[in-house]
This record gives sequence, structure tokens and C-alpha cells, in this order.
Amino acid sequence: MTEPLALRRIRVVLSRPSHPGNIGAAARAMKTMGLHQLVLVSPKEFPSAEATARASGATDVLENARVVDSLEEALAGTVMAAAFTSRIREMCAAPRWASEASGELLSFAGQGDVAIVFGNETFGLSNEEVMLCQRAVTIPANPEYASLNLGAAVQVIAYELRRTALEGRLAPLPQALGEVAPHEDVERLIAHFERAMIASGFLDPDKPRRLIPRLRRLFGRAAVEREEVAILRGMLASFEPKVDRNTRDF
Amino acid sequence: MTEPLALRRIRVVLSRPSHPGNIGAAARAMKTMGLHQLVLVSPKEFPSAEATARASGATDVLENARVVDSLEEALAGTVMAAAFTSRIREMCAAPRWASEASGELLSFAGQGDVAIVFGNETFGLSNEEVMLCQRAVTIPANPEYASLNLGAAVQVIAYELRRTALEGRLAPLPQALGEVAPHEDVERLIAHFERAMIASGFLDPDKPRRLIPRLRRLFGRAAVEREEVAILRGMLASFEPKVDRNTRDF
Repeated sequence: MTEPLALRRIRVVLSRPSHPGNIGAAARAMKTMGLHQLVLVSPKEFPSAEATARASGATDVLENARVVDSLEEALAGTVMAAAFTSRIREMCAAPRWASEASGELLSFAGQGDVAIVFGNETFGLSNEEVMLCQRAVTIPANPEYASLNLGAAVQVIAYELRRTALEGRLAPLPQALGEVAPHEDVERLIAHFERAMIASGFLDPDKPRRLIPRLRRLFGRAAVEREEVAILRGMLASFEPKVDRNTRDF
Repeated sequence: MTEPLALRRIRVVLSRPSHPGNIGAAARAMKTMGLHQLVLVSPKEFPSAEATARASGATDVLENARVVDSLEEALAGTVMAAAFTSRIREMCAAPRWASEASGELLSFAGQGDVAIVFGNETFGLSNEEVMLCQRAVTIPANPEYASLNLGAAVQVIAYELRRTALEGRLAPLPQALGEVAPHEDVERLIAHFERAMIASGFLDPDKPRRLIPRLRRLFGRAAVEREEVAILRGMLASFEPKVDRNTRDF
């Protein structure tokens, strides 16, 4: 059995985990399924002896884990991010079953890193966090008791990705034939839209009418290409009133 | 989403678990996927505060758990049992991927209880334990690190069963059109064969030549029917030398 390389491109992102034991359990779950990239957003306690104990033989995953301050940072460099959530939220991608979504996620992994984002044990992911992800993924839990342990959730998702990779069931990508833009480029594009629309008077920051979330959803769904980002930003720049070039980009 | 009733017929059997925390994690994993029957074979420590803590909201599964002394007892009343093991063992059913095996297991659940048997955290299942099961099931773990935590393994298997049940992908049963015999009837049948073959001189207890394991494998594969058990036992009885009828059955 050859190890599927796409799994090396999967980042497991744990956002604000409270219990270090769950970080260890997640690391162990990842490694059993051939996943290695762990990113922790503001963990309550890490490194931790409890995490190491629960990781068992997967301490290498813990040792290589990156700790960052924000989900944006965790997603930098990814071409796709999926939020693990069962809730349907306005302005966010509707959750799909992991068994259906994993083929597309692995196809994106052919282009670059793909993140699966798990929320805090008690509060889950915020709407803002889910909106930073272009996809949402869930599993068909018991509606009367859907409370998977964080490590168990990572185990099931990692298992689905591995199973799909081994079965070679890669889904065709959406019509993004070129190179998909990394997360931070898309964020800059959206920020550029916002700035341009405010400047033009189309977007009133006091009454934003969900214009930005809608744009975000559109670009997320489409998996926008690098070249498309360049075109759109060039277009936006052409609409802007002349400003000091040094302050334009951010 | 209607809860699939077949899942109520699934028994999760943990054989000789060492860590009470894993029992709690297994209970939680089961409940999230709609499984409720937990059977513990000689647990090192149970009940336990640690198990209860790790079970989180699934303490009802722990409270209803049955504790027994042997795997035979745990399997009594089942029409099918699958061992969770990745090792290929002589005289035992070859392990199949859970994603492939779950359809058949759920079909058997239409007839009666179906057990999934998990071994000790360190030693796994013994050959003797696997031989008591008619099927073996595994998941495609990383060959370089396949050490799933016990609770995580239960989570993945329970997930596969639930996913399959919800998708309605029930596999056709083998040609067992009648009522499948429960575990203990098949065990009595095999014991009857053994006794008859010893009496006839075909089986030398000092040189058993794996005759019994082969019969066990055959009947396990076939999922023998109640009526077939009756026919075979009647046939065996007809071969036996006359003995005191009171001692014949056991």
C-alpha cells in the first residue's frame, strides 16, 4: 500500500483548543491515518505533558506542530479550507458529509495545502471562523447526541480522507483549471473589494448589507485562481481614486 | 433523518480493556453514532470515575453496559460477530475494510444482534478470540503507525456502520435465506462435531490437525441457519454410538 502523498498536504487546524489531552489525541489520530501537519490556533495549554502522553507514538506530530495567533495565520498558504461544523450558517458554505467532500478536498491537495479546521471543544467554530473557510464538512452523527470528542472528530475526518485517497476517488475540481490562489491572496482580494466599494460609496461601512460575506462565499465556492485574483485586483485598482501607492497594498 | 434501527442491534464488545478512560471514550463514540449496546469482557477497572468522565453525555451507555467473564458469554445471542484486527491469521476470516464489511454486518443486524469485538489496548485480540468471530474487520491505517487509540477505533467503526446504514447500502446476505443461528447454537454444533469425530476416531485429540478450526471457519463464512444446525446435529447424533441421552447435550 503506497502512502498517498495528498495526505501530506492536509493541515489539521485546531482553533482555540481547551484541553491539551485532545491535542495529543488529535496528533495520534492524524498519524494513524498518514496526516502530519498540525496547526494550533491559540491553544490554552501547549506544549503539555498531557498532550504528549495522549499522543502516544505520535509525538513527532506534536513536535512539528505550529502554534499561531489567528486562524488567518493558520490558513496562510492553503488553497482550500474546510470547517468542521454541522450547523448551517448564513453566508457560509453548507456542510457536506465528509464521505462526499473528501474527494474534492484531496483534489485541491494536488495544488497546495488544504486545511480542515476544528473548533473549540465547547463552543465549536464561530461564524467568523467558518466564513474564512471555503467549505464546511460534517459527519452524520446521532441527532440526539452529536457530541464527538475533538480527537474522535479528527480521527473520523482523517480516516475519511485516507480512505478516499486509497480508493483513488478524487473528485473533479470545479472549473478552476489554473493554479488556485492561496488563502491570503483571496483575503487581500476581498479586502481590496471592500476598500474599493467603500471608496466608491457602494458599501456603507455602517450598513454593510452582507456584501463582503457574499463576495467571500462566491470566491470560496469558485476556488478562485491566482490569475483571476490578479485580474480582479487590477480591475479594482483601476476604479480607485488615485492614492499614495505605498499605502495601497496591505 | 430517521435513526436506523439496525444500529440498535450492534453490540460493541471490548475484550479485557486495561484503561477505564477508553471504556468511557468508547461509550461516547458509540452514542454519537447511534450505538447503545456495550459489553465488557473482564475489564480491569469498571465502573470507574474516569470512564464516567470520559463518557461525557453518554453515561447511559455505561450504565447499561454488561460486564461478562468471557467472550463466549459476550457473543451469546448474536447472529454474527466481527473481530477488529488488521492481522491476517491462519484459520480466521481475512480482515476486510470496514467500509466494505459494514453493509453485510448491518444486513445481519436485520436478523439479530451483531457484535464488533475490540481487543486489549496493548495485546489486541488473541487468535482464540478472533476464531470465535465469523468475520474480521479493519481500517486502512498508516502502515508506519497504525496504533489507533481504542476509543478512536470504536469511533471509526461506529461511524462506518452509521454511514452505511444512513446510505442504505445494505449488502445482500450470503445464501442464508432462513433464520441465522445464534452464536451459542453454532458453538454447540462445533462441539458436537468435535465429540462425534473423536468418538468415531476421525479426530485424535492429541493430533487435532486443525479440523475444528476449519469447521469453525466454514460455518462462520456460511452464516449457518438454525435449521441447518438442527439437521447437522441430528445427523451427528445418528452417527454416535448409543450413549446416555441425559449427558448427550451440553
